[in-house]
Amino acid sequence: MTTLLIRDCRLPDGAAADILVRDGRIAAIGPGLDAPAGASVEAARGLLALPAFVEGHTHLDKTLWGMGWYRNEVGSRLIDRIDNERNERKRLGLDPRRQGEHMARMFLALGTTRIRTHADVDVAVGTAHSDALVALRDAMRGTMDMQVVAFPQSGLLIRPGTLELLDAALRNGADIVGGLDPSGIDRDPKGHLDAVFGLCTKHGKPLDIHLHEPGELGAFALDLIIERTLALGMQGKVVVSHAFCLGEVSRAPALYEALAEAGIALATTAPPSRPVPLVKAARASGTKIFAGNDGIRDTWGPYGKPDMLQRAMILGMKNDLRRDDEVALAFATVSDWAAEACGFETCRLAVGERADLVLLDAETLAEAVVAQPPRRVVISHGRIVARDGALVA
Amino acid sequence: MTTLLIRDCRLPDGAAADILVRDGRIAAIGPGLDAPAGASVEAARGLLALPAFVEGHTHLDKTLWGMGWYRNEVGSRLIDRIDNERNERKRLGLDPRRQGEHMARMFLALGTTRIRTHADVDVAVGTAHSDALVALRDAMRGTMDMQVVAFPQSGLLIRPGTLELLDAALRNGADIVGGLDPSGIDRDPKGHLDAVFGLCTKHGKPLDIHLHEPGELGAFALDLIIERTLALGMQGKVVVSHAFCLGEVSRAPALYEALAEAGIALATTAPPSRPVPLVKAARASGTKIFAGNDGIRDTWGPYGKPDMLQRAMILGMKNDLRRDDEVALAFATVSDWAAEACGFETCRLAVGERADLVLLDAETLAEAVVAQPPRRVVISHGRIVARDGALVA
Ligand SMILES: [Zn+2]
Ligand SMILES: [Zn+2]
Repeated sequence: MTTLLIRDCRLPDGAAADILVRDGRIAAIGPGLDAPAGASVEAARGLLALPAFVEGHTHLDKTLWGMGWYRNEVGSRLIDRIDNERNERKRLGLDPRRQGEHMARMFLALGTTRIRTHADVDVAVGTAHSDALVALRDAMRGTMDMQVVAFPQSGLLIRPGTLELLDAALRNGADIVGGLDPSGIDRDPKGHLDAVFGLCTKHGKPLDIHLHEPGELGAFALDLIIERTLALGMQGKVVVSHAFCLGEVSRAPALYEALAEAGIALATTAPPSRPVPLVKAARASGTKIFAGNDGIRDTWGPYGKPDMLQRAMILGMKNDLRRDDEVALAFATVSDWAAEACGFETCRLAVGERADLVLLDAETLAEAVVAQPPRRVVISHGRIVARDGALVA
Repeated sequence: MTTLLIRDCRLPDGAAADILVRDGRIAAIGPGLDAPAGASVEAARGLLALPAFVEGHTHLDKTLWGMGWYRNEVGSRLIDRIDNERNERKRLGLDPRRQGEHMARMFLALGTTRIRTHADVDVAVGTAHSDALVALRDAMRGTMDMQVVAFPQSGLLIRPGTLELLDAALRNGADIVGGLDPSGIDRDPKGHLDAVFGLCTKHGKPLDIHLHEPGELGAFALDLIIERTLALGMQGKVVVSHAFCLGEVSRAPALYEALAEAGIALATTAPPSRPVPLVKAARASGTKIFAGNDGIRDTWGPYGKPDMLQRAMILGMKNDLRRDDEVALAFATVSDWAAEACGFETCRLAVGERADLVLLDAETLAEAVVAQPPRRVVISHGRIVARDGALVA
């Protein structure tokens, strides 16, 4: 592999430095490094260097980006949105591989090199979405790290046949077992959780469960998830996505403690419109928390962009993180904290780490988060993969 | 004045059209318009035309944009932020005219042609900020419509001399009387409100009061503001900015009704971090509501951008506006609803309206809000003032 010297960038702490990349990893960081014989030299001219970004929760199979504007006329209940999507997928001719690849490449061009994506599994599409994203994952290996969650978007027990399809999706290579609102959608919290944890045990795979359930109903689901995680020794292998209930119930502090003890991490989109788990509260208890966009421009809603800096800004605003040291927490939720909680390779600007880097024109890390300036250079696995927001050949 | 034909744009309803601009106003809209002799022709090539944007609440005098990154290490209480700012203004060498002009020009380049800005008035700076923005307002007349609110940021009654300074700022040309947290900062709700409404009566000018006070304390302030507005016949002349309490108290529906009856409008930044007045609830009662950025990149916090489409996106997310017809409401809060509530000239894409327009590359209005694409052309008062985000000479 090539050797690359990034000359004259600045590190998040403000220090001027060169970064030497060799065999896909960071070999040295410091001022005035010598360029080894044969090394390519990238003149960074004072650009800020950041570790690459991590998308912790999205749905690559469902984005409509690039397919023409989708006029959203959907009702506002969760079930309206689920039913509408199932109906519209076919009418729109949604191709999960094509759409997923398009979106993953845009993520890469904007500096993201690790993505956890959910993939719909249901009796209408079977394992096709999950299989498509597994194939995409394998095709992008070495450039983009991807994890595929086999996700029962339309319900699990209420749609007979779905459990077997999840089982098949996992056999076909999906990385993670998905779940969804055990009471709100499946009407059987014990049954749903026994089923998804059963799949985890059978396949030796982690769990990532969507939990939109409000208040004490959601907290009850957390109780059940914590019990099973501890009983099965799955500490460090379980993520709860959304967990809105933690922004609502008075016993949230005790729940955070219990989640920390069970090694359960939280994924959040930090939606402005409702209470959610907060970064400082989670971290104070030792609970890992990280961020994701969720669906980007799909039948659920028009918002989102494959830019984790925009998501960090929204999370920072949601958590009222204003001081520079607080904005750095927002950045952590879209970089190393997300990598760690998802079980990706770590994502840090340090010697020995994989050389996944972004160079951009910002004075500080906080400015990068609030202004989301163009990505001048994106480096993945030690290679320059994008310049000025576009992939290089 | 010149005549300008915008050829081949699309209107927010999707229709292809030409727009004829004459003497600063929209003279005709429709397909296949003839270019009058001597008219300039702007080939829009299918770009979406939108009415220009309105910033309903900002602080042009205090932005630090362009002054180097401000490392924020401020405490989290309101009073910490007020005190820090008063101390830092001098140390940083903040020039309100220079900063205000820089920011106003960026607003213009991104499509905003009407701005209501607050200007600090206190015993440290006297009327200097307000006077500077009044001079800026006059200098930009014919390109940017600006209203200046004389704003007692450090308190009114608790800082003797401030009332006289507000009076002087208004004599010097400030357009609007400002107020701030009658109980929370001034510790005397009756005294504060009598003072600011007294200035309104004396100068025949409207009121715009910052109200951060929570829950029933804020609702009590609203009660007092409503009483005085009705008693003084100031319907249509009063804005309450923030009014977080409307997102908190159970009697919010009755308050909205009372605000509507008193013709009091609400300005909101739609902050993700806390409950706020919601667009649909306000509009259902007949209460006008519009949006602003508040401070942009100042000592209070690093967030914000002089782009009203970004603010519309945040407001849309805050209000969970997903359908295209709902996203259009978010756009209204940064365009015509803001113009109407602030008493600016109306801001619509219709014959007879002032020709303040933006051309950008989006398929629909909703896409413009969620993606905030580059502003290809900005037209103010019938003249092209910016292209691709930069002002033209
Ligand atoms: Zn999701
Ligand atoms: Zn303000």
